[in-house]
Amino acid sequence: MQRSQLGKALLGSCAALVALALSPTIAAAQELKDVKSSPPLVLKGEGSFFVGGNTHTVGPQYEAQPGESMINQMYVQFQKPVAQRRQFPIVFVHGCCLSSKTWETTPDGRMGWYEYFTRNGFDTYMADQVGRARSGFDGLQYEKVRVGEAPPETNPNILIATDQFAWNVFRFGDFATRTPYPDERFPMNTVGVGPGSTLTFYKQVIPDMTATLGTFGPNPSDYRPTPAAMAQLSNELDGAILVGHSQSSSFPTRAALQQGSHGVRGIIQLETGCFGNLSQSDINVLKNIPILIMEGDHYPTPRPVEPCPTEMAQITAAGGDITYIHLPDIGIHGNSHMFMQDNNNLQIADILIRWIDRHVKGFRKHAGN
Amino acid sequence: MQRSQLGKALLGSCAALVALALSPTIAAAQELKDVKSSPPLVLKGEGSFFVGGNTHTVGPQYEAQPGESMINQMYVQFQKPVAQRRQFPIVFVHGCCLSSKTWETTPDGRMGWYEYFTRNGFDTYMADQVGRARSGFDGLQYEKVRVGEAPPETNPNILIATDQFAWNVFRFGDFATRTPYPDERFPMNTVGVGPGSTLTFYKQVIPDMTATLGTFGPNPSDYRPTPAAMAQLSNELDGAILVGHSQSSSFPTRAALQQGSHGVRGIIQLETGCFGNLSQSDINVLKNIPILIMEGDHYPTPRPVEPCPTEMAQITAAGGDITYIHLPDIGIHGNSHMFMQDNNNLQIADILIRWIDRHVKGFRKHAGN
Repeated sequence: MQRSQLGKALLGSCAALVALALSPTIAAAQELKDVKSSPPLVLKGEGSFFVGGNTHTVGPQYEAQPGESMINQMYVQFQKPVAQRRQFPIVFVHGCCLSSKTWETTPDGRMGWYEYFTRNGFDTYMADQVGRARSGFDGLQYEKVRVGEAPPETNPNILIATDQFAWNVFRFGDFATRTPYPDERFPMNTVGVGPGSTLTFYKQVIPDMTATLGTFGPNPSDYRPTPAAMAQLSNELDGAILVGHSQSSSFPTRAALQQGSHGVRGIIQLETGCFGNLSQSDINVLKNIPILIMEGDHYPTPRPVEPCPTEMAQITAAGGDITYIHLPDIGIHGNSHMFMQDNNNLQIADILIRWIDRHVKGFRKHAGN
Repeated sequence: MQRSQLGKALLGSCAALVALALSPTIAAAQELKDVKSSPPLVLKGEGSFFVGGNTHTVGPQYEAQPGESMINQMYVQFQKPVAQRRQFPIVFVHGCCLSSKTWETTPDGRMGWYEYFTRNGFDTYMADQVGRARSGFDGLQYEKVRVGEAPPETNPNILIATDQFAWNVFRFGDFATRTPYPDERFPMNTVGVGPGSTLTFYKQVIPDMTATLGTFGPNPSDYRPTPAAMAQLSNELDGAILVGHSQSSSFPTRAALQQGSHGVRGIIQLETGCFGNLSQSDINVLKNIPILIMEGDHYPTPRPVEPCPTEMAQITAAGGDITYIHLPDIGIHGNSHMFMQDNNNLQIADILIRWIDRHVKGFRKHAGN
C-alpha cells in the first residue's frame, strides 16, 4: 500500500528518471541473433505438426484453381531435452494478437520460457492459436465480400492491437504520458521508453482473426477450435500440462471439459481464465486436475475478483486442488501482463515449475470426460 | 524419355496400385510428436527476433484503443549448433501460401531441412515472409471496407490455395484422377492418396496475403518488404547464404540488389527465380556472389527456360559463378516442387551443402551494393 502510494506520487514527476533507469541495456538488433553464454541445449529432437482441421470448399469465383482448403488446424512446435526429468510435457498457448513468439526470446533478447522449460527437463510444446500465425485462418468471408457475394460489413473484424492497447492491456503504465509504473518489469526499452529505445516488442503483435472462428459461448465446454485441438493434443501425448495466457487463459479448462478429453494433467491459467458457473459435471472433471491461476501486478482492483473466488470455492468444496497466486501477495512486484517476458521471467518460470513438481507429479489420474 | 512414356501409359490404369505402393507408412498423428532415433541435437542456443517493420496509425473508427501498430516486420527463428563447421549461416525463406513450417518436420513426420542443416554445422535461420504467419500482415484495408470507408472490391485478394492448386503447382500428378506421377517422391499419403491416407500436408497451406504488401515490379531491386528484410538480416549477420523457394526464389537476388546490401554470400534459388533483364550495375553485384538454381522433376517443358539462360549467360560472361541443376539431369527423378519434403529430401540437402562447400567457402568477398 505504502509502495503503491509512493508509485503514484512518483508517476507524474520523474518519468525521465524512470525511463533512464529502465533502459540501461538497449537491445541492438545484433544481440538478438546471438545466444547468451549458457550450457549447450542438448535435444533428443525437435519438430512441428498440426492438430485438428477440416476442409472447406473454395469456389471458382474466388480462385482460378478451386477446390478444398484446410481451416481450423492448430500448428504445434516442440523440442524434447535428452535429460527428461519431468513426467508430463508442457504445452504453451499464447494470448490475443500474439503468436508462439510470446514464449521465445524476449523482445530485449533474453531467454524465453520455451527454451527455459526445455532446459528444465520438460518436453515443451507451443501452439499457434487456430486462426493465427502458422495455423492460418479462414479467409473466405473476405473473399465473399471482395467479389460482391456478401455485404462489406460482414468482413470479420480484425483486432489490430496498437501501442495504446498494449500499454493498457499489458499494463505498462500511463499511456498518455508514456510513463511506466515505477517498478515496471517489462523491458520498456522495447516499447519506446528511454534514450536509444526501440519499438521491437510491437513487431510480435499481429492481427487477431478470432472473429473468423466459430462461436465462443460463456460455458467452459463451448466449442472453439483451439481448446478442442488442445484436448486432442493432450490425449495424443498421453497426458500434458496445459498453459494458457490472457485470451487463452481459459483454454486449458475448456480443453479439459471437451467431450472425450482425458489427457489434461495440469491447468495453468496465466492472467485470469476462471469460470464461476461450473456445473456439477464440470466440477467432477476439474476436481481431478490440479489448477494454478497466476496474476501479475498493477491491476486496478484487489485480486482475485469474480469469477475466480466462486470457481475456487466450487473446486475446493469438491476436494480438488486449485491454487491462486497474485504475485504481489508473495512479494514479487512490478510484473506486467506479459510476465513471460518481464525482467524476472525465469524467476516466475521457477514458481510454475515448483508448483508443477508439487501438484502435478503423482496427482491421481482422472477418468476423463 | 522411356521412363516418361511408361509413366504416361501407367497413369490412367493403375492408380490404385500406385497409391498402394506410395502409402506403405501412414503417418499417424502420434508419430509426428515423436522424434526419430538420431544422435542428440546439441545447440549452442536458439531464439527468434524480427527484422524491419514500420508503424502505421490505426484510427478510432477501427479500434476502441487507437494508436500505432507495426507492419512489414519479418519474423526470424534460428538455432546454432555447438559444432559449427560452416563459415556462413544459412537463411531459408518459404514460398506461396506456406510458412517456415516448410523446412521443419515433413508432413509424414521425417526430419526437415531446418534440423538437418543445423546438424550439418550451419547456424540455421528461417523467416516467415512479411505478411504471413508470425510476421503478421497489414489488416487495415479490410477494416476500411468493413466500416464503409472503402469499396468492397478493395479487400486485398487472399490467395487461398486448394488441393487442386497444390497438385498442379507442387506437381503431385493428375488432379482430376488423383493419380500421382509414377515416380512421385512427395509423401502422397499426406494428400489423400492411398488407403489410410491423411490430408495432413494441406494443414500447412495458409492464406497468402501478398496482395496486402507494396509493389513488386519486374526488376530485381524493386521494393518488397521481405527481400529488404533479408538484405538487412544478411548485413547484420555479417554474411549469410540466402535460400528462396518458389514465390520467394527470386528474393535472395532481390536482397543482394537492395541499396546498402553487402552481406549476401550465396544465392540459392529453389524452383526458378531467374531474371533475364539484369542491368550492368546488377551484374556487377551478382558476379561476385555464387548462385545456385535448382529445379525438380515433371515440369512440362525441357529445362531451363527463360529467363534463366539469359541470366546465366550474363553472369558467366561477367566472370561470375552460376550453377543450374535440373535434378533429372543428374539422375534424380520424381521430385516435386516441394523437394524439401520429398522422400529424398536429405539427399537433396546434401547436394546443396556440397555446392555451398565448393562455391561459397572462400569465394572472394564483394564490396556490396
